Amino acid sequence: MRESNREWIFAKRPDGEPDMESFELQENDIPEPRHGELLVRVQYLSVDPYMRGRMRDAESYAEPWEVGEPMQGTIVGEVLESESESYDEGDLVTGNGTWADYTVLDAEDVAPVDASVADPPAYLGVLGMPGRTAYYGLLDVGDPKPGETVVVSGAAGAVGSVVGQIAKLNGCRVIGFAGSDRKIEWLTEDLGFDAAINYKEVSDYRGALDDVAPDGVDVYFDNVGGPITDAVFTKLNLDARVAVCGQIAHYNDEGVPTGPRKLPQLIAPRATVQGLLVGDYVTRFEEASQQLGAWVASGELVHRETIVSGLENAPDAFLGLFSGDNIGKQVVAVSE
Amino acid sequence: MRESNREWIFAKRPDGEPDMESFELQENDIPEPRHGELLVRVQYLSVDPYMRGRMRDAESYAEPWEVGEPMQGTIVGEVLESESESYDEGDLVTGNGTWADYTVLDAEDVAPVDASVADPPAYLGVLGMPGRTAYYGLLDVGDPKPGETVVVSGAAGAVGSVVGQIAKLNGCRVIGFAGSDRKIEWLTEDLGFDAAINYKEVSDYRGALDDVAPDGVDVYFDNVGGPITDAVFTKLNLDARVAVCGQIAHYNDEGVPTGPRKLPQLIAPRATVQGLLVGDYVTRFEEASQQLGAWVASGELVHRETIVSGLENAPDAFLGLFSGDNIGKQVVAVSE
Repeated sequence: MRESNREWIFAKRPDGEPDMESFELQENDIPEPRHGELLVRVQYLSVDPYMRGRMRDAESYAEPWEVGEPMQGTIVGEVLESESESYDEGDLVTGNGTWADYTVLDAEDVAPVDASVADPPAYLGVLGMPGRTAYYGLLDVGDPKPGETVVVSGAAGAVGSVVGQIAKLNGCRVIGFAGSDRKIEWLTEDLGFDAAINYKEVSDYRGALDDVAPDGVDVYFDNVGGPITDAVFTKLNLDARVAVCGQIAHYNDEGVPTGPRKLPQLIAPRATVQGLLVGDYVTRFEEASQQLGAWVASGELVHRETIVSGLENAPDAFLGLFSGDNIGKQVVAVSE
Repeated sequence: MRESNREWIFAKRPDGEPDMESFELQENDIPEPRHGELLVRVQYLSVDPYMRGRMRDAESYAEPWEVGEPMQGTIVGEVLESESESYDEGDLVTGNGTWADYTVLDAEDVAPVDASVADPPAYLGVLGMPGRTAYYGLLDVGDPKPGETVVVSGAAGAVGSVVGQIAKLNGCRVIGFAGSDRKIEWLTEDLGFDAAINYKEVSDYRGALDDVAPDGVDVYFDNVGGPITDAVFTKLNLDARVAVCGQIAHYNDEGVPTGPRKLPQLIAPRATVQGLLVGDYVTRFEEASQQLGAWVASGELVHRETIVSGLENAPDAFLGLFSGDNIGKQVVAVSE
């Protein structure tokens, strides 16, 4: 055990694209768990695009981070000290902690990690919040029916890669947008996508969609926004559903971005566009966890984590999300 | 009876804002009804914003008009000759005819007009397609609950004026956007709107909404688009519903208009935006007709028609829709 606790502090609110100035690594005492709490050695921590929103000093769905406070996020780790009857030393758990070597979690807010189902990092991706987001966002908001065409942006990310596979399991034609040939290959060769478009190589997104989605688009699961979304909106079929899960292309925009107006495009197809937050499904998480776990165990659901080693590299791992460094879930390995 | 039939022909597809060049008045023979048809003397004809879409040579929800063919639209008129057992000479009916003195209608596509419920022009507005659009658009798509705040753009128009009143009947706080002081007065004094904003006088729409919708917006019924809609989208509450009925601010745009991106604004409130066409509710029209007729008869639903006299003025009446000339439903009186 280390003698002190390294912990990333939120040092400065960024303007536009964040950089290292927003982060400061401090050495503090290892925290002590109180009654009902667990001291956990962090093995893996999650960096997620939505965290960019928490860097803003604006009320939104996730509380803004306070400057000077530790960076927060989901972690997987091992219980070192338990002040709760629910967990013992040595248990693997996941919960909302800090970007640190050691973190204290309330035992009531923690879930067990079963390493026999999947390696621990998967609990930050396919078996964690991103997987549940994909599950409810696609099935509840997207409501895909067999034979329909489903398009996913950010398809090689933690959420998109699960969305596309669940759509395939539901008998849909699935098309993904992603940003590298390696990602395209992963989607089409390993995940069973019917087609994938490298948006960094292709310039005419609408033309590319005409080729691979000749029957139009019934469900669009949007993680990205921007010109990809602009193109997909011109292809929406009658009664199309759009799940707006993320808009990573716009998270670093200062001010309100502009683009083609979409409301006029919704009338003829009577399309529905809905914003989506996984927290709304909290009472049903067990259903998603069971189903996702079963699909992972059976091999029907492929998952992948891009693991950056070392707590010191956590900010880099986070910043890399905005340049698309990750394939699958971006995770930081803090200890083993 | 006239010796010939004046009939407006669609003469030319407009670029951008239409003008008189798109219309040509021809004199033709009075048509003869065949078996199952009615010859109708047109008393009133309807001009509606959606007709701008039919002027385009592009597939949309309403079939494009063919150049050289008569202008089509809903009419109210008197049966002069009946080749159907369903209607007799002298009956008042409404159906889809042409911009003409006389038109032939299929008796199966016609509905009777009961002048004891409301004057015939009302059957082109509150008791016609615009009223049913308001009814289903607000109640099915908007789904307003008592105490919620409902905002309507184009509030003094044929659809908007009914939307606002149905929202009031459902116990909502109702705010309208309209374009003249006379309209504002009508909305707040006669129709019971809680507040109305003259978008041609006010420059800060968001600020104006802050004053009159301090609790945010739960339902937005959009007939207009543009900067009004941009402002309303910044005020959407959790689980807000947006019914996109029309986008008249953009109907004359050539190419795709641009504006603030709205998808990023949908995530935090998990708002739902849905395009709306009244034709989807055709199997339920009887319900709306009954309820709207009852509200009109009881005086709970106020209606108004702006009547332009003379078939020769039909194109002017249509073009006036885009400058907001009408209060309530814009109708052309062809004969009495």
